[in-house]
Amino acid sequence: MHPTARPLAALCLGALLGLAPSPTGDLRGFTAESAKAEREWEAKFRAIPSPDSLREDMRRLSARPHHVGSPYDKDNAEWLLAKFKSFGLDARIETFDVLFPTPKERVVELVAPTTFRAKLQEPPVPGDPTSSQQAEQLPTYNAYSIDGDVTAPLVYVNFGVPADYERLERLGVSVKGAIVIARYFGSWRGIKPKVAAEHGAIGCLIYSDPKEDGYTHGDVYPQGPWRPRDGVQRGSVMDMPLYPGDPLTPGVGATKDAKRLAVSEAPTITKIPVLPISYGDAQPLLAALRGPMAPAEWRGGLGITYHVGPGPAKVHLRVKSDWSLKTLYDVIARIPGAAAPDEWVIRGNHHDAWVNGAEDPISGLVPLLEEARAYGQLLKQGWKPRRTIIYAAWDGEEPALLGSTEWVEAHADELGAKAVAYLNSDTNNRGYLDVGGSHSLEAFINDVARDIDDPETRLSAWKRAQLRAIADASTADLRQEARQRPDLRIAALGSGSDYTPFLQHIGVATLNLGFGGEGGGGIYHSIYDDFKWFTTFDDTSFVYGRALAQTVGTAVMRLADADVVPYQFTAFAETVGRYVKEVEKLLQEKQDTVRERNRQLDEGVFTATADPRQPSVPPAREELPPYLSFAPLDNAVDALNRTAERYERAFTKAQANGGAALAKPEAQALNATLRQSERALMSATGLPRRSWYRHQIYAPGFYTGYGVKTLPGVREAIEQKNWSEAEQQIAATAQALAAHTSVVGRAAEQLEKLAP
Amino acid sequence: MHPTARPLAALCLGALLGLAPSPTGDLRGFTAESAKAEREWEAKFRAIPSPDSLREDMRRLSARPHHVGSPYDKDNAEWLLAKFKSFGLDARIETFDVLFPTPKERVVELVAPTTFRAKLQEPPVPGDPTSSQQAEQLPTYNAYSIDGDVTAPLVYVNFGVPADYERLERLGVSVKGAIVIARYFGSWRGIKPKVAAEHGAIGCLIYSDPKEDGYTHGDVYPQGPWRPRDGVQRGSVMDMPLYPGDPLTPGVGATKDAKRLAVSEAPTITKIPVLPISYGDAQPLLAALRGPMAPAEWRGGLGITYHVGPGPAKVHLRVKSDWSLKTLYDVIARIPGAAAPDEWVIRGNHHDAWVNGAEDPISGLVPLLEEARAYGQLLKQGWKPRRTIIYAAWDGEEPALLGSTEWVEAHADELGAKAVAYLNSDTNNRGYLDVGGSHSLEAFINDVARDIDDPETRLSAWKRAQLRAIADASTADLRQEARQRPDLRIAALGSGSDYTPFLQHIGVATLNLGFGGEGGGGIYHSIYDDFKWFTTFDDTSFVYGRALAQTVGTAVMRLADADVVPYQFTAFAETVGRYVKEVEKLLQEKQDTVRERNRQLDEGVFTATADPRQPSVPPAREELPPYLSFAPLDNAVDALNRTAERYERAFTKAQANGGAALAKPEAQALNATLRQSERALMSATGLPRRSWYRHQIYAPGFYTGYGVKTLPGVREAIEQKNWSEAEQQIAATAQALAAHTSVVGRAAEQLEKLAP
Repeated sequence: MHPTARPLAALCLGALLGLAPSPTGDLRGFTAESAKAEREWEAKFRAIPSPDSLREDMRRLSARPHHVGSPYDKDNAEWLLAKFKSFGLDARIETFDVLFPTPKERVVELVAPTTFRAKLQEPPVPGDPTSSQQAEQLPTYNAYSIDGDVTAPLVYVNFGVPADYERLERLGVSVKGAIVIARYFGSWRGIKPKVAAEHGAIGCLIYSDPKEDGYTHGDVYPQGPWRPRDGVQRGSVMDMPLYPGDPLTPGVGATKDAKRLAVSEAPTITKIPVLPISYGDAQPLLAALRGPMAPAEWRGGLGITYHVGPGPAKVHLRVKSDWSLKTLYDVIARIPGAAAPDEWVIRGNHHDAWVNGAEDPISGLVPLLEEARAYGQLLKQGWKPRRTIIYAAWDGEEPALLGSTEWVEAHADELGAKAVAYLNSDTNNRGYLDVGGSHSLEAFINDVARDIDDPETRLSAWKRAQLRAIADASTADLRQEARQRPDLRIAALGSGSDYTPFLQHIGVATLNLGFGGEGGGGIYHSIYDDFKWFTTFDDTSFVYGRALAQTVGTAVMRLADADVVPYQFTAFAETVGRYVKEVEKLLQEKQDTVRERNRQLDEGVFTATADPRQPSVPPAREELPPYLSFAPLDNAVDALNRTAERYERAFTKAQANGGAALAKPEAQALNATLRQSERALMSATGLPRRSWYRHQIYAPGFYTGYGVKTLPGVREAIEQKNWSEAEQQIAATAQALAAHTSVVGRAAEQLEKLAP
Repeated sequence: MHPTARPLAALCLGALLGLAPSPTGDLRGFTAESAKAEREWEAKFRAIPSPDSLREDMRRLSARPHHVGSPYDKDNAEWLLAKFKSFGLDARIETFDVLFPTPKERVVELVAPTTFRAKLQEPPVPGDPTSSQQAEQLPTYNAYSIDGDVTAPLVYVNFGVPADYERLERLGVSVKGAIVIARYFGSWRGIKPKVAAEHGAIGCLIYSDPKEDGYTHGDVYPQGPWRPRDGVQRGSVMDMPLYPGDPLTPGVGATKDAKRLAVSEAPTITKIPVLPISYGDAQPLLAALRGPMAPAEWRGGLGITYHVGPGPAKVHLRVKSDWSLKTLYDVIARIPGAAAPDEWVIRGNHHDAWVNGAEDPISGLVPLLEEARAYGQLLKQGWKPRRTIIYAAWDGEEPALLGSTEWVEAHADELGAKAVAYLNSDTNNRGYLDVGGSHSLEAFINDVARDIDDPETRLSAWKRAQLRAIADASTADLRQEARQRPDLRIAALGSGSDYTPFLQHIGVATLNLGFGGEGGGGIYHSIYDDFKWFTTFDDTSFVYGRALAQTVGTAVMRLADADVVPYQFTAFAETVGRYVKEVEKLLQEKQDTVRERNRQLDEGVFTATADPRQPSVPPAREELPPYLSFAPLDNAVDALNRTAERYERAFTKAQANGGAALAKPEAQALNATLRQSERALMSATGLPRRSWYRHQIYAPGFYTGYGVKTLPGVREAIEQKNWSEAEQQIAATAQALAAHTSVVGRAAEQLEKLAP
């Protein structure tokens, strides 16, 4: 379910830290000797992944629809298991039983002022063989929509995010008792019915507007890669910002005998019925609306006048699902660590799809398979990774990160003790290396990217990303940073793929990787995301699939083999400092906005500038937001900066002169300390109203869905104008940072002892 | 031809000057005694204009198509003449004979890869009686297109401005030998064929895209006010930035015996054939294009994928016109000045239209008529304006400002000696008072606006405009200025209406006024701009027509009656200082852009970020623009500021204590000096390559058309990278400012003698 989650340019850039990058030619965390061996193994590794294998694996895995509960989902899992085994890996399937609704009845029809019945059906495309596998295709629907049958006037709500409802208020339009129609994008889809229900709507349609996802972007399938008139984006609308995974077993693995909630108690199921529709089906509904004109920025790419309503368009919406439990098949392969078997480097990509899923997720899964195949060869040649490597092909990511979440919940204690890092992918395209993750791994992954060849240029993947950052920089300052900062910035992670339980529930340092930014398309979560489409329009020669295998595989090996885990804390400290400045600025902007708006209310600006023929409602007067004391955060960042620099000085010293210190037996204890550094950022009680999310620095937004909120407790309290909670969260976040600083300080001390 | 010329918010705002506004309750340039009388006459005046008269006059004047050369054009002129006479005014018709082509043959057809013949016809609308007057309607065409018959591949060029051709170069697309299709907006329409021809195109189509002018904005006519599928924008494509008026008699009145160029020698006729088309006709042509995707910001509101071409769409375009001379009928009415008959205040609005023209120009003309009717009543009650007032209903504005230009050229010497000010309007709508003009009249027109009631609120027109400026301010600084600056800024004038010959050819201080900014529509230059449309969707109760009559009529009276002409030079000086800063910044930005682009070329940014599947051409390396010495301009502005402040001090002193000094006989000499102040801003040689335009501060852009270029000689030389010309124009502009400063200094001296 990756695409809308990923920012378009994630290797973006910021301010100089003042510290030199890792010594050139050296590998962070390795002795000179172990680095030499590592470089040789890595070079051998990168020669193995093959575009032909990638293509054939994709052909097989996407040959039939393979959503959770389908025969081919299980078949793929068994095939993957056999593959891992054939590479010589120790592999098995772990199963979980989860709630996954599949549609039984779906109706969308206009009942007034004229009538029209939506097709809700994606037609097969001649020349695209898998597009006609209708018997096995999951119909177009939004999983975890509650059952319902409603008829009501329609209201167009733009993206359906909170700001859109504020705009509707200014237009004097309410959605109470209405069915809303929202366009995809602007937020993760699950936010749309959630916010609609909060405002009193009784049903929700979500459609793909051609402005974001259709002919506005290019020729549509099969003439081009973009979403055709009847293409529909399936997808989950579960309230995942509350918790992902099985709705019936929050916090625990959905094993056979797990204690389960009743379906009626599950808080993550929507409050109102929801269905997704194509722009072909949406056009007659939208064209039948009257009422105020949609604000200029709400107007999409359909050849119509966009009105808001309510009505006279009246819509009948019916959804009914089969709410039975389905079985998940997680495929887990393992390479035991030779020296540190209880330190785990984990790598995953999901295998389930909404339909055939050539791009999502198979384009990310087949590089993972190639990595595993290559490791099999290296093992035969004598490679012995220091740490244990675990390769996972998750099931049930699409509905709700089911397979990864249940596995993490089932193995939480062991992972808490052993996990060094989790590396995720989920789809892969052409273009630029795109990285998000824990900033303690920022320097590390930059070093890896410097060793990867971009298939389209004579440049490294790192260099190409840097040149793009220069090209895309919106200010001279950003351009200067792109040129001068030693490392490219990595994005913070929100949600939308299987890294979420690792990073945000149990605190494992995480990276999410993929290539992208060239080409594009509109087959996301449709029947047209298939082998024919991918091999016609996307990474047709699979050279970027190979590049992803080379990138992630190299990163996994380097993390598994390093004498000392190559976390680096100065970039994390600097980045958190920036986040603190952002939330301070956010408060100030809120104050400025309210102050100015109240002044304009006093001046009569809103009534004076209202067109009497287009009635509008002045905004409500608001209390001025109070000043908050950010001192605890500022002090925590200061302490972290000092400690991170101390660690860095100690590290540089330990790695000097061949770095023999790193190979001392006491380095094991240092590694154990380091594993706790990300864990220390978790709060025991979790975020307000969603305790499953425990990371105090990174979380998906409560009202954005996939979109990240950094310092989420503080930032969302300010956004929601909950000032007392903001003060509490400043304290809680500062406390987590202090705990992290304390771990880093302990690690620095251990390092100083290693190399006094 | 007004709408695209007028910036949406002209009463915009800037920085504080530090000088107090005119003393409250006083009228600038009046003694206390004359001010009291003036206020009484103005109050009487403003009670007279009547919505009912406005409605009936519009009904009559827009009852039939009345373009230049049509029977109803002449009929309207004679009716207007009779009206003026009936008000007791001395009126007559002045005629000129001008080249005005009307269409004989028009063909636009797609000849490959499929075929389609454009309708080129606006259908009548049931319930709109005048829309069916097809026999009298001028067909859809662009006047002053050269005759031609061409068949060639089509290329979409966005707005068809120079920057768009730079973008095409980056896409590797040439228009040489092609027919281009450009959308309306982004520049005045005449620029599009001009720039296309410069790039080697052999034909040009201009269409109205619904994104700018159609259903994207609202319901289309007759359901709503916006441009329907088959609506076409007629209009002139003459090269008016070279010179307006009759192409055959540049610089002289087109009287019977004037010396005329041959049509083939006329430089303002297009180089390639041009036709305007509707979006209904454009859609099949655009949909048949392939080649690169149009850049995102080029994509319009049609429900298609926008490609650039060239081809495979191939188009046949044929245009042939009747090139005979037609007769213009300018209606000129006069109220002789009682005390200063040789000082003229001139007020005009055109009467010709493209078709019925209820909005353009009749909505601006009928207030003018009401002003004249009211003056007739005041004259009978004993009002004796000090100066001569001339009211003009111009013919032939639509094709090329023909009637005003020929009249100004024919009376240039007399106007140079006598004209105090020219006040123009051209269409009127609902909303906010919108003013452009000479900044020496900025304070004056602000004072008038404070005395006008806005019909929709309980506010003055000035107050409502100020509150809107606060609402629309894009920065806190602009908001502060809107709140604190005593006067609202007025816009600089480019072209697009009859003020151009007055202001830019002979240097008469000018104001252009109208209400607008509420509602809107898409009937501009179509058959749907008629009485039915206007009275259904626009100023339906004619209260804004009355407000315009009250505003302009008050301004005319006050200018005609003032003892001393109320020019004020500090705002002009401040404004010119801002323009100087702008051109300095423009050069610096050009330098920064070239420096950065060259650096990116060195770094390989463009090749590294090119998608190999979408070939693109790196930009050319450019020489770094040199530094220019702006010192002459900076010094000239400094001197002007000092002198303007000296004048202002002297004025304040002269108007103090009842202002008896202003009534002294010597004030006549002061007024004679003041009349030369705007004239002094003209250069004898005119602007480079377009000597007709002589104002050194305001001109229409050579590549924008209507859009103003302030300090045009300097600004356009920098834009065109003509560095030696930029240096010359800095000198020429500084010289004009010095000449103006010298006039203002002389006036200050005279004032100081009046009130020592």
